[in-house]
Formats: sequence, structure tokens, C-alpha cells
Amino acid sequence: MLFQRVHALRRAAASPQYTLNCARFISDVVAPVKPRSYKNIFSGIQPTGVPHLGNYLGALRQWVKLQNEADNKTNLYFSIVDLHAITVHQNAEQLRRWRKEMLVSLYAVGLDPARSVIFCQSMVPQHSELMWILSCHASMGYLSRMTQWKSKLSLPENASPLDATPKDKPALRLGLFSYPVLQAADVLLYGTTHVPVGEDQAQHLEFTRELAASFNHAHSTTVFNQPETILSPAKRVMSLTNPTKKMSKSDADVKSRILITDEKDVIEKKIKSALTDSIEGVAYDRDARPGVSNLIDIMYYMDESVAASPEELARDFKDVSMRALKERVAEVVDKNIEPVRTTYNDIMAKDERDRYLTDEATHGAWKAKSQAGRKMEVVRSIMGLQRTFEA
Amino acid sequence: MLFQRVHALRRAAASPQYTLNCARFISDVVAPVKPRSYKNIFSGIQPTGVPHLGNYLGALRQWVKLQNEADNKTNLYFSIVDLHAITVHQNAEQLRRWRKEMLVSLYAVGLDPARSVIFCQSMVPQHSELMWILSCHASMGYLSRMTQWKSKLSLPENASPLDATPKDKPALRLGLFSYPVLQAADVLLYGTTHVPVGEDQAQHLEFTRELAASFNHAHSTTVFNQPETILSPAKRVMSLTNPTKKMSKSDADVKSRILITDEKDVIEKKIKSALTDSIEGVAYDRDARPGVSNLIDIMYYMDESVAASPEELARDFKDVSMRALKERVAEVVDKNIEPVRTTYNDIMAKDERDRYLTDEATHGAWKAKSQAGRKMEVVRSIMGLQRTFEA
Repeated sequence: MLFQRVHALRRAAASPQYTLNCARFISDVVAPVKPRSYKNIFSGIQPTGVPHLGNYLGALRQWVKLQNEADNKTNLYFSIVDLHAITVHQNAEQLRRWRKEMLVSLYAVGLDPARSVIFCQSMVPQHSELMWILSCHASMGYLSRMTQWKSKLSLPENASPLDATPKDKPALRLGLFSYPVLQAADVLLYGTTHVPVGEDQAQHLEFTRELAASFNHAHSTTVFNQPETILSPAKRVMSLTNPTKKMSKSDADVKSRILITDEKDVIEKKIKSALTDSIEGVAYDRDARPGVSNLIDIMYYMDESVAASPEELARDFKDVSMRALKERVAEVVDKNIEPVRTTYNDIMAKDERDRYLTDEATHGAWKAKSQAGRKMEVVRSIMGLQRTFEA
Repeated sequence: MLFQRVHALRRAAASPQYTLNCARFISDVVAPVKPRSYKNIFSGIQPTGVPHLGNYLGALRQWVKLQNEADNKTNLYFSIVDLHAITVHQNAEQLRRWRKEMLVSLYAVGLDPARSVIFCQSMVPQHSELMWILSCHASMGYLSRMTQWKSKLSLPENASPLDATPKDKPALRLGLFSYPVLQAADVLLYGTTHVPVGEDQAQHLEFTRELAASFNHAHSTTVFNQPETILSPAKRVMSLTNPTKKMSKSDADVKSRILITDEKDVIEKKIKSALTDSIEGVAYDRDARPGVSNLIDIMYYMDESVAASPEELARDFKDVSMRALKERVAEVVDKNIEPVRTTYNDIMAKDERDRYLTDEATHGAWKAKSQAGRKMEVVRSIMGLQRTFEA
């Protein structure tokens, strides 16, 4: 920072504003540290192929909004976190395809590689490098109180990471236990100040904040920011076939979810077969009428300008038949994701001709690497792991 | 391999030996896989500054011997494992200095950067990258049965990694628990077939072998060799001041150890003050007379050509006074490490003038990286983590 200021000062010295700039320089340097004016936003998504409406409405659309509303002091980093995907078994061919589909989807929803740094985590080695260094600071006790590995293996709340594995479960692997540290590395590498996360990740972000603080404390210097969460109003999109469960890529029934690339007729078919109930009329009640309420939610989230709330939107439809409601929902969904679908198909077609995606992804990774690399040089220097062997 | 053979065949086709070569090619390809004829040797040493006689006689001299006796089908990799050093707290300035001293020591004892790949682990990002990938294969249960973290924290045999930390001990960090996986990555990155290790590392090498086997099995292909140990006759050099404990860098008393750069007068002084006993005459008995036996051992290890065994060597000195024995030991030690000390000082002086060590270390790291990078491309491709986004 100081260097940049000195540099700016040198340039300024040649200008008529020299005296004024000089005064500013002094006040900048001498004044107590002010709250930072820049923002670094980081978020990640697993490579699960083409996103469904849950991913789109819950995360991706918010990322696009953050990007489009960001001022020029904001840097945005969006990562396809493929190193996290492998904490559970993956079919390699499918992972390769899913990664590509997710990359194209990020572009298609409106993330702009000229504005945001869009990259695959595994193409930036600093993530693994910082993970190891942070491992040497993260306490085993704290990690074992994280709960996600238990839910991923469907183990009870009181399970210990060292318990013998039940016969019907896969053994707990180190990666599934230690991945909050990788997540911390993901976030801390970019001087992140803000992380848009879902509620289920709040525990991990708190872990990241404490790890950053403990690293800074151990080395008596501020290497890492303690990032804050950006919590957006929860947009929970439920399964079409089982509306008490979240819409999910891992559901075996493809009719349970709408993908952002689904064609109009596919959307219509899926919504038509959505599980609702046989109560007459339309009303919003997530407990008593989860299927209908989910359809209302989807319609409302798609375009919140049409009503003040899902409840109000439901009232507009109260005397409408289920069939008519479904037709309307399908229409709204199609209208809203049509541009995404078209862009997705255009990008895929362009890549078919020009094979440009690898270049685009490499360029994104290069930008991430240059930022992450700078942070790592600071970390190395503080740890005594420089690349030089000066006296 | 096949590609190389085809390539060789193409060149051969232009030669009069074409037919013969053709037959060889066919027998090579068609014949069942023969035991591999190449060797890849890997070993690592922590950056603990200038090595003492224990490091030198127990490991480094064996590395030099391996290097000098290796045929041209043998590749050798010797790494300063600075990422392992940080599993316990390090003073950054000291680590930086110790790393440099260790690098210069490796050159000084006779490891030749033109013959062996000599590099700093932290300068090769593939170590951390493969560590993460192997983390997703390593079972927590197996790791918790490793014992080194217990001894490093001086915890009892039955300690669990999740126990609350006793007030007088530092908390167990993830890095100290998971480092056998980093060690496995170190070894497996270079297609290692042989690892010269001390007895205390045998457990970790077994872990590496099983991890390699389980990775290969999970991906139905042989990505990693299962390396074998090269066990050399144990050369235990004990502390000069407390001859029932191993000579160690962490002993607060510098007179407990002789460094390979110690000048003649320093060696004489340290050996003169070495703890022995007041029994008359010299005899070899490690239990009853540990101090004297340690001196005999050091003399014997320094030049094994002088006697068939330490016992026999001790008999040559049986009527000699302790003082005369010590003088003789100091003389032998000095004579044998004098060339190492001189080379060490020459290298340091040359670096003072030419600042060439950073270049030399960068070149070593580059060679390691190109080898490790090839292995990682195979691993990435098998996992579905390619750098390309082809259809």
C-alpha cells in the first residue's frame, strides 16, 4: 500500500496539484488506519453439472447481482471448487463433464470473465499450498466439532471421527474431515472481505475467521482479513417430486429438479408432474401445502416485482385450478431462464467450433493465481519459507 | 513407455540394425511385464541447519553413497522438507537460515546437483496438491494409529487426537496429525521405488505403500509405485553429554553434538568434554559404558576400514587412557569431515560473492517440478481434474 502511494506521489509530483497531493499523502500515511474502502468477494460452487433452480435462485443469481452492482473498488472471485468435490467418491468422466457444464453455466447466468475472476480451484495450486500451511495452525479439537462430515456420511450427531466405521458406511477419509481448512484457504487467499454463503456454511465461515485471527496472532501481523458473510434472504427451492426436501442434484429422479438449460417443453412436463395436493384452490402454506407453496415460491423468486411476497402472489391465484397454476409457473420459469439457456447453448456451440473454453478457464485461473500467488509470497515470507536463499 | 519405444523404432528403421531392433521391439511389447529395471530413490531431511554427526553418519553419507554408486537407470531425489518443519512452531528467521545451511550442507557432503535432484519441498507446489488428493483417500482411523504426533507432543501411548489438550502442552494441530499423508505425497510424486529411511520412519513408509495401493485400486490402474525401504545398518550416534540419548539438534547444550562444519579446535573441545566414565581402560559396551562406546562408534563409523567392528576397534584401544582415546577420536573426526567443512565454507563464500544459491535451488526445484508435474497430470486426468475443458 505504502509503495503504491509513494508511486502515486512520484507521478503527482509532476502535476500542478503537487502540494495538495503531498498533503494528502502525509495525511494518508500518518492518519490512523481507516476502515478499508475496497471489497474482495469470494464464493465457490461445487462442479455438479448444469445448475438447477435451487442453485440458480439460491446462489448464482445473487453472484450476478453482486457483480453487476459492484463499484470499481470491488474485486469478485467465483470458483468452481473441484477439490472439494473429491472429498466424496466421484466418477472421473462425470466430474470432468460436470466441471465444464458448471463453467459454461457461470458464464451463461451472467458472470462476466472480464469483470469477475472465474476459475477452477484445482488449477490454482496456492489453494492446496495454503491449506497445508493452515493445517499447521488448525486445531484437531475444533475441526472435530464441525458437523458436515457427519451429515455427508449420514452419521449420528454424536459420532466421533475416530469411531470404527459402521459396515454400511464408507470409512471417514481425512479429506472429508479436514476440508473446512481448504475452505478457509480458498477464502483467505484473495484477501476476501465478504463471502456470500448459505446458512449451512455459516459454521465454516466462523472457523475461517478464527483461523485467520489465530494465524495473524501467531505471526504478530495482519496477513489475512477476517471475512464477513453476505447473507441474502433464504431462497429455498424444494424438490418437485418431494417438496419437503431441498431440490438436489443427487436426487435420482430427474423430474425432481429443473435445470437452467431445460427447454420449455421439459419445464412444462416437470412442473405438470410436480407433486401437489388435492385441496381445492391455491394457498401459501409451506407446512400444510408444501408442493403448492414451492410452486408459488419458484414463481415469486423468478420475478419478485410481481408481488410483495409469496403469500400475496398466492392470493392472486386463489381461485385458479392447479392445472392453470402449473401452466403459469412453467411459463414464468421458461420466460426467465430462456436467456440463460440460449446463452448456455451458444457458448457450447461456440466451443464446439473454436475450442475456446480451455483458454478462457486458463485465463481465469491465471488471474486467480496471480492474486493468490501474491498472498502466498507474504505467507511464505512470514513463515520463513521464501523462495530465495539470501544471507 | 510404448510411445518411447515406437519413437525409438522409427529412428531405428533408418539403420541397418532395423530387423534386429524390430524383433526386440516386438519382444519388449509382447513379453509379459518384467521387473522394472529403473530405480527412483527419494529421501527427505528437515531443515535443521548445519547437520550434526548423527545426521551425517545416519543419513547423508548414505545418500552420497547411493548417488555415487547409482547406475544410469537410477534417478535420485533429495528434498529439504521444509513443509514438514512447520508442523511444530518455527521461528521464521531461524527456519530461513536453517534451510540455507541445510542446502549448502547437502552440496558440501557430496550430493551433486548435476546428478541428483536437490530441492526444497515448499518450492514444488505439487507436494501440497497431491497431499490434498491423497487426503481424500486416507482413512482417519489408520492415521490416528500413527504414533509420531504423540511423541512430538510427549503424550502417552494411549492418547487420542481428539483428547482435550493437557494444560502444559500445545494443542494438537491438524498438520501434526496429517503429515504422514504429506510424506506419502513426497514419496509418490517421483515414482519412487526405493526410500532410504531410518527405523523410526518404517511405519510411515508402510502407510505410504498402503495408500498407494488403495489409490491404485480405487482407480483401477497403477498410478503409484509401492516403494521399498533401503535399510542401512543402523548408525546411532548418541549425545556427547548424555550418551543414552540420540545426538539431536534440539538439545539445548551445543556441546552435545558435533556439526559437520565444526573446526578442529571445536571438535577437540567437544570430545574432550564428552561424558564418559571412570572405569579404567577402554571397552565396548553400549549398556554399561555408553559414553566410551559412543566415542568408539563415532570413530568406527567415520572410517569402517580400520576394523571389522566397533568391538574390534575398542580392543585396539583397550590399554589407552581416556584422554588419549578422545584425542584420537577428535583426530579421526576432524580428518574425515575436514573436506566437508572446507567445501561448506567455500560454497558460502562463493554465495557471498555471486549470490548463486537461489539460482541453484530454483534449478533443483524446477527439475523436481517437471517430474512431479508429470505425475500430477496423470493423477488429475484419472480424477477428472484435467486442465482442459474439451468435449
